[in-house]
Amino acid sequence: MSLLVAKFGGTSLATSERVINVASRLVAYHEQGWDVVAVVSAMGKSTDDLLRLAKSVNQRPPARELDMLLATGEQVSMSILAMAIEALGVGAVSMTGAQVGIVTTNIHNKAKISEIKAERVFRALEQHKIVIVAGFQGVTREGDITTLGRGGSDTTAVALAAGLDAEVCEIYTDVDGVYTADPRLVPRARKLDEISYDEMLELAASGAGVLQMRSVEFARNHGVVIHCRSAFTNSTGTLVKEANTMEQAIVSGIAFDQSEAKVTLRNVPDHVGLAAEIFGNIAKAHINIDMIVQNISEHGYTDISFTSPINELERLRPVLDEAIKRLGVREYLVDESIAKVSLVGAGMKTNPGVAAKMFKVLAKNGVNIGMISTSAIRVSVVIEGEKTELAAQSLHTAFGLDSSDVFQETQLSGEELAAKAAKGR
Amino acid sequence: MSLLVAKFGGTSLATSERVINVASRLVAYHEQGWDVVAVVSAMGKSTDDLLRLAKSVNQRPPARELDMLLATGEQVSMSILAMAIEALGVGAVSMTGAQVGIVTTNIHNKAKISEIKAERVFRALEQHKIVIVAGFQGVTREGDITTLGRGGSDTTAVALAAGLDAEVCEIYTDVDGVYTADPRLVPRARKLDEISYDEMLELAASGAGVLQMRSVEFARNHGVVIHCRSAFTNSTGTLVKEANTMEQAIVSGIAFDQSEAKVTLRNVPDHVGLAAEIFGNIAKAHINIDMIVQNISEHGYTDISFTSPINELERLRPVLDEAIKRLGVREYLVDESIAKVSLVGAGMKTNPGVAAKMFKVLAKNGVNIGMISTSAIRVSVVIEGEKTELAAQSLHTAFGLDSSDVFQETQLSGEELAAKAAKGR
Repeated sequence: MSLLVAKFGGTSLATSERVINVASRLVAYHEQGWDVVAVVSAMGKSTDDLLRLAKSVNQRPPARELDMLLATGEQVSMSILAMAIEALGVGAVSMTGAQVGIVTTNIHNKAKISEIKAERVFRALEQHKIVIVAGFQGVTREGDITTLGRGGSDTTAVALAAGLDAEVCEIYTDVDGVYTADPRLVPRARKLDEISYDEMLELAASGAGVLQMRSVEFARNHGVVIHCRSAFTNSTGTLVKEANTMEQAIVSGIAFDQSEAKVTLRNVPDHVGLAAEIFGNIAKAHINIDMIVQNISEHGYTDISFTSPINELERLRPVLDEAIKRLGVREYLVDESIAKVSLVGAGMKTNPGVAAKMFKVLAKNGVNIGMISTSAIRVSVVIEGEKTELAAQSLHTAFGLDSSDVFQETQLSGEELAAKAAKGR
Repeated sequence: MSLLVAKFGGTSLATSERVINVASRLVAYHEQGWDVVAVVSAMGKSTDDLLRLAKSVNQRPPARELDMLLATGEQVSMSILAMAIEALGVGAVSMTGAQVGIVTTNIHNKAKISEIKAERVFRALEQHKIVIVAGFQGVTREGDITTLGRGGSDTTAVALAAGLDAEVCEIYTDVDGVYTADPRLVPRARKLDEISYDEMLELAASGAGVLQMRSVEFARNHGVVIHCRSAFTNSTGTLVKEANTMEQAIVSGIAFDQSEAKVTLRNVPDHVGLAAEIFGNIAKAHINIDMIVQNISEHGYTDISFTSPINELERLRPVLDEAIKRLGVREYLVDESIAKVSLVGAGMKTNPGVAAKMFKVLAKNGVNIGMISTSAIRVSVVIEGEKTELAAQSLHTAFGLDSSDVFQETQLSGEELAAKAAKGR
């Protein structure tokens, strides 16, 4: 019999009604003859509630205890989902990460899966039960509960799909698939029927938020087909899988990211190893940076620019202050009003000229380019934030991505529809 | 070094402030040189919230999944308490029932502890950590999470105290000990400095709600000294321990119970085995009954009365309806306006005449007695519910239990004080 792993995010499980909907969907699969394993996140915003509770007694909660606390969120949703399935007359059994045998490293709050011993899952499936597994959590060899960090539930699902040799790993979210661009910004965006792992990774890294990079990477490494779809409709979503080598789109999608700032270090003494020291210190502080650009040196000084997440600036400033004091950098400027626009497409590899065309389109529309970075299947540029929409739409049209349909209010995500419905009451 | 087990109920952990108070108390013990193990219930009313959530997806939640769900309540409070202790600079480690090694039978929702493997607790204590254990829960040999049912956290605490050979098992509640009577009904009630296991069991069985019978029984069987005290003050509470054989109070306490109804079966055919059949059917339906009284038979018929918890009447009625139809009982009457008043004291064994004195006192105060039952150290009578206060106070005075202090509003329980404070805001 074929096995299916289906992962449901917190939004899909936020209320009793939604839990019952998810239960019905799983029961339908079960009745079609599938072996069904569901992976769940914590209901709604309950993880945030638990974090708030932790902070109310300890501003810096110890990592082990935080994992102990946060793991309860998934334990609640999995048992509630199992109950909802049983109410529909089908046997269900929920399992914590420890019960499944999801063994992880002992780095609390961001553990990595080292092994999945799925005997219990197989035994339950043999008894024709639907198995519900807590996402996001595992257990160390010493028996301590761990969590996998951001995107952890997706990773649990993909890892289980790999470990159980599932036909497909369905990831249910509040949007109905991967789009050529965010439809809220580009109304003519098209849903993609499929996309390659590499393209998905580049899109995710460039700001498209549908799937977590870590789970896509895991899926690529283990050949797991991901079906990214909406928990609120029955329509087919987007398959993320091995690239179809016959025919590859030059540009599959456009991603935007307004969460980064541009930082410019002015008058950096042009000594060998000095940039390395500055970036070394930034790395030591675990601050992500991207798109480093260095100007040509003049009179023994140079300017260095890079981008960094706005929410890491607070930690970045002391590192840069020290660089000013100790290394003779004159000053640094921070521009938070930028946006990064990226074109992603596996076909770029064999079609030169994408970057040139991109620059031409942007120039024609009066969009200045601040910084550029590229990979084999991606071109990213930094532009003024207020021109994001203009840049996105003109590039979308120029690279032939426009749909004949225009995204309308009725195509809101499940979350938005639910919010709307709640207001209407 | 001496080891102390301290159990905190949900009320003592209902808010962050209270959790921090509990943490301070444990840290103070730790600094005095005690090895400290705390056992916690779920915070405030969170177990009720979880039950409501379960019912919203399944009116009869499967027992295994209900345990999985309810166990999260204690997991939240234990990790929050551990965080609060760490915030005070002392190492703490929380453990689920499974992690401690509290092995139970596999009867979900009311499992019994079959073994405690406390190696992990000892290891943590050797590292000078305060150990926080989830009350109310355990794990089957197959690795499934179980809960111990009503009063389960007290049982966990006493069982751990026995297993770890603790000096004392402190049970913190919202009242400051065991009283000669409920001070809200009998303002001159006195707090007892100590009480024997047997007396405590009889008081608990007769309606005094401070400690759960099951944990007292466990304590008696394993010789664990319980110190029942308030989480909201530092005053000494009541020690529950082996009876002091030198000097035993004739009456240690008076308990009241208004939660039962009196049921009378009228005109029961006086055949051998008929009463046995009726009570057999009641027992099969898992309905508790007490104080059975049978009148003298007349013309081949008799009346039988007994008491039963009001909240079990709904399940009792069909059993009695069947008795009417099938066994020729004429009818049954239910009186929910009764109260049971019990005198408990180990000294009764060697002091005859307690019952006689009790009846005389009640008669003098115009209180009619409906039913009587006794044990070696208890006399219980059923009276009209509205005379409970009068009966209680006059018995309390007559048996020399009155305190010179009168219970005042300032002696409210922590819960009541908190409610008052909340209103005052």
